[in-house]
Amino acid sequence: MSSQPPHPTLLIPGPIEFDDAVLQSMSHYSESHVGAGFVATFGETLSMLRELFQSQTTNPTSQPFVISGSGTLGWDLVAANLVEPGENALVLSTGYFGDGFADCLRAYGACVTKLDGPVGGRPQLLDVEKALKDKKYKILTVTHVDTSTGVLSELEELTAAVKRVSPDTLVIVDGVCSVACEEIAFDKWGLDGVVTASQKAIGCPAGLSISIFSSRAMEALEKRKTEPATYFASMKRWLPIMKSYEAKKPSYFATPSPQLIHALNTALKQILARPLSERFERHMEVSDRVKKAVTDLGLKIVATEAKDQSHAMTAIYLPENITIPDLLPKLLSKGVVFAGGLHKEISTKYFRFGHMGVTVVDPKRKDIDNALEALRSALSECGYVKA
Amino acid sequence: MSSQPPHPTLLIPGPIEFDDAVLQSMSHYSESHVGAGFVATFGETLSMLRELFQSQTTNPTSQPFVISGSGTLGWDLVAANLVEPGENALVLSTGYFGDGFADCLRAYGACVTKLDGPVGGRPQLLDVEKALKDKKYKILTVTHVDTSTGVLSELEELTAAVKRVSPDTLVIVDGVCSVACEEIAFDKWGLDGVVTASQKAIGCPAGLSISIFSSRAMEALEKRKTEPATYFASMKRWLPIMKSYEAKKPSYFATPSPQLIHALNTALKQILARPLSERFERHMEVSDRVKKAVTDLGLKIVATEAKDQSHAMTAIYLPENITIPDLLPKLLSKGVVFAGGLHKEISTKYFRFGHMGVTVVDPKRKDIDNALEALRSALSECGYVKA
Repeated sequence: MSSQPPHPTLLIPGPIEFDDAVLQSMSHYSESHVGAGFVATFGETLSMLRELFQSQTTNPTSQPFVISGSGTLGWDLVAANLVEPGENALVLSTGYFGDGFADCLRAYGACVTKLDGPVGGRPQLLDVEKALKDKKYKILTVTHVDTSTGVLSELEELTAAVKRVSPDTLVIVDGVCSVACEEIAFDKWGLDGVVTASQKAIGCPAGLSISIFSSRAMEALEKRKTEPATYFASMKRWLPIMKSYEAKKPSYFATPSPQLIHALNTALKQILARPLSERFERHMEVSDRVKKAVTDLGLKIVATEAKDQSHAMTAIYLPENITIPDLLPKLLSKGVVFAGGLHKEISTKYFRFGHMGVTVVDPKRKDIDNALEALRSALSECGYVKA
Repeated sequence: MSSQPPHPTLLIPGPIEFDDAVLQSMSHYSESHVGAGFVATFGETLSMLRELFQSQTTNPTSQPFVISGSGTLGWDLVAANLVEPGENALVLSTGYFGDGFADCLRAYGACVTKLDGPVGGRPQLLDVEKALKDKKYKILTVTHVDTSTGVLSELEELTAAVKRVSPDTLVIVDGVCSVACEEIAFDKWGLDGVVTASQKAIGCPAGLSISIFSSRAMEALEKRKTEPATYFASMKRWLPIMKSYEAKKPSYFATPSPQLIHALNTALKQILARPLSERFERHMEVSDRVKKAVTDLGLKIVATEAKDQSHAMTAIYLPENITIPDLLPKLLSKGVVFAGGLHKEISTKYFRFGHMGVTVVDPKRKDIDNALEALRSALSECGYVKA
């Protein structure tokens, strides 16, 4: 029995449904942010993040960060610390969030070149290689899964290409909608940074910016010619704090949120209790099932090709003559919350179904079956008949 | 009966002890950040903040912001948005946090002049006036209560002086350790900004940067010659989001934390259920009682003069030959958590006792009596005898 009151099942691409134990950790009694109990919890949480990112090589070692903020703060960490004003950044965009990362980099003075995929697709590897040969880029950023389109980028192949063509370029991943549901082998693939948030597949309420950076990225920060023009997003200011917490020593820069860190600790323990490979496979299975059901209904998926489709979510075109204000309230009346569109070119023409976390991995939950059934009846009530 | 398990009473100057209902709101089931239910909760929360800051004048109207982050993020909001690189900022410092605000302003390129109070005191008004006459300052910042020293600044008198001597200078208050326990009459005094955090006298777990800015401050932002070099801390990006939520309309820039906003909503409802004046008086009474008990014990308070002593906390010099590692573990064994020192010149020589929020206003709690008794016995166990 869940300890949560009955409520519509939240199947947007984040925030997701949360496990009871995670939500209970949110109401942990108040603790000092520098007391031994909380320091141990935060330290353990940082160490677990290394495991989640498959980044446990000790020499050179990567550096995890957990900072109070939205996932968006991760972009600021990258833009303020790893690129100096006037340096070049190559942004691969597969939707709203790729465009946002580019805006953020520009705000800090980076010279941004953006390669856009077509709606539902991603920039081609040959074009990326060509761009990398044309100009020297300090960093390349890629959205692993763009929450606005459900387009998946192929990180391993991409990173290998960058290392081949422009080995000095740092590869930075926006993993907000992919960490803990799509495979990310940080060390093996040679990534330089992944920024994410708590409220998607990690399964902890929103409010934490979570990231990991390679020793190469940390060296690039060390070697800057100019000081980063930020304070709260300064990785140099947070670095000793993260190192201290992980060494189980108190330290202070800005007060962390003990309750959110407790919830993240609980969520990570649940994730790491089973092999990560099993978790990724389960998300693939469920995603395949959703995509087949949607296609069987005669609907079209925004991410055009199967290899470009994320396993975290599915963005689905509305049938003709059915609108978001028609469909979403009918779904809500059946206890299911989906999201509307977000990509500027097609925003009113599609909806989004998130399938991450407990909804996917907890065998007691029937969220996916219920959602697919609700979708079938809601469409039918809207007068939809498969062509 | 509290629903919280037995735990040491947290009497550091933040985070503080939290009310059961507030902690229960932290485990609210997951909701969409753009769904009608949460939008209404967030909107109501913003409106309640106007009441908390005594800023309900509708024309011109001030603007509240609630953003995921530590209290420190409030400094970045000010430094990134209200001062352009090369503009002058006058920082009044009464301890660690005044110095931190200055560092943050410098990180964004402001030309900072810092007026330091002596340890335990504050800069004198005549010196502030002299500085304002010497040079044109875009903003003046003041820490209402510096958490490192417990020194209280006199906001009303100070603001009146600034308006007399340099009426164009924006008056910005760091209210992290004062909002909801020391009076702040935002409109009446003519303040231009107050930045604070959730985890102190407001009584909501850490993780929210809470602020309010005058229409004059918002106009200064509008009239900037350069774009603010930040993304997550950009007030221009957050402004339409805050306006939308308060108008009960969905909008999106970066995902807020529904659980923290629910907890803040609960905390503000509790605060506003009684007249604010009563809340401020109660904090004064309890603070006076603590300060008398401490003085009766023969101990010396860091804030030298009574008029400079905050009602949120008391920073207390250790007796000679008694150290923090002697005293704090003894207090902990009696179920009381105090904080060590933080001010660089005296950090090992004093400790801090926070008396804010439910600890002070909930008549069922005996936190203060217990803490004073624990302090007496712990000192006695350390061999302390009043001189």
